[in-house]
Amino acid sequence: MKIGILGGAGRAGAFIYQEAQARGHEPVAIVRNEAKAKAKLGDEAHLLVKDTFDLTAADLVPFDAIVDALSVPWGSGKGYLHLDMATHIMHLLRDTQAIALFIIGSSSLEINGQVIYHTFDATTAQQPWFDGARYQYFEYIYLQMNPEVNWIAVSPAMAFPTGPKTGYLRGKDELLVDEAGNSQISTGNMAAAILDELEQPSAIHSRFTVRDK
Amino acid sequence: MKIGILGGAGRAGAFIYQEAQARGHEPVAIVRNEAKAKAKLGDEAHLLVKDTFDLTAADLVPFDAIVDALSVPWGSGKGYLHLDMATHIMHLLRDTQAIALFIIGSSSLEINGQVIYHTFDATTAQQPWFDGARYQYFEYIYLQMNPEVNWIAVSPAMAFPTGPKTGYLRGKDELLVDEAGNSQISTGNMAAAILDELEQPSAIHSRFTVRDK
Repeated sequence: MKIGILGGAGRAGAFIYQEAQARGHEPVAIVRNEAKAKAKLGDEAHLLVKDTFDLTAADLVPFDAIVDALSVPWGSGKGYLHLDMATHIMHLLRDTQAIALFIIGSSSLEINGQVIYHTFDATTAQQPWFDGARYQYFEYIYLQMNPEVNWIAVSPAMAFPTGPKTGYLRGKDELLVDEAGNSQISTGNMAAAILDELEQPSAIHSRFTVRDK
Repeated sequence: MKIGILGGAGRAGAFIYQEAQARGHEPVAIVRNEAKAKAKLGDEAHLLVKDTFDLTAADLVPFDAIVDALSVPWGSGKGYLHLDMATHIMHLLRDTQAIALFIIGSSSLEINGQVIYHTFDATTAQQPWFDGARYQYFEYIYLQMNPEVNWIAVSPAMAFPTGPKTGYLRGKDELLVDEAGNSQISTGNMAAAILDELEQPSAIHSRFTVRDK
């Protein structure tokens, strides 16, 4: 499978790139900074060096799947870029059969049936991560308006630390928490879950979530 | 006021252009087809000849307001372009003070407090206008996710025929119907309502509706 990874040299994206490569797929990291991407992925890495908003439909034609692993810096006040990047990618993929998989935040998940985003209060809104969480919640609402594109969304658990592949569990809308009360998915396990889903898609037009096993 | 009108040579857009000009503003019709626009608006018309999706943030810098009067042909199966054009324009206007006014459909309005879109059934979904109506409903949901842009939405009455300015009444979320049971706004009256709103904005981050008086 030819897989374009937006933010493919980022914290999660690099794990996805490496997992795809290890499985014999053809990943391409879509990045803005070539030097930074090569430092992370190696000089032989397959790159498409372009800003997300400069991508055209023609750029994406070669890909069977696109993974949006883009991040927006906390506190930048530009959380809306999560939404804008998603709307741009979706526009480019209209009338194609490509799969578009978006990593969205955990705030659209539920705890005991209640959407986490709806539990946020004025204090939460002061947190540096809130702006991005809000627009990733909106991103999920936006995705659900679009039956014409083969989109899939994945929410990490509450914590999403950098770490290796060790095994994961999968759920749907409820935040996953382990027996000790921890809700966590490593970047390595997220990468494995994403590749498993791309190889055998079962969540098109919906969202799933994962935690470390 | 410098006003960029997307679809400014279209059925509604041309009325908006002419109303803005008559009031001493500086309208610019943003169009794809220069010859067609000149045939409609005159050889002296101020044009920006560009496809909506090729517009850049720099293109929109000169404008105090942008009006989205774009249409999508019924039955084209491309109703999603309503949503995609809105998301592109909103992205270009991030971190600006410009007003962005979107003409959306009437299906997001209410009848006796119930949203019209929610009353649609499988038969409705067969109608040639349904695809566009659906995505204009989604467009309204999308707009409400975006406090960072000074957006305004306006819904026409049920019928939106071509006709002159004769006077209009304004409402908020309930579909407006006259004493005889007609729900209609002419393109001329819509243009007047839009210019009135742009000159003295009172609906930023919300939607209003209009009917012929």
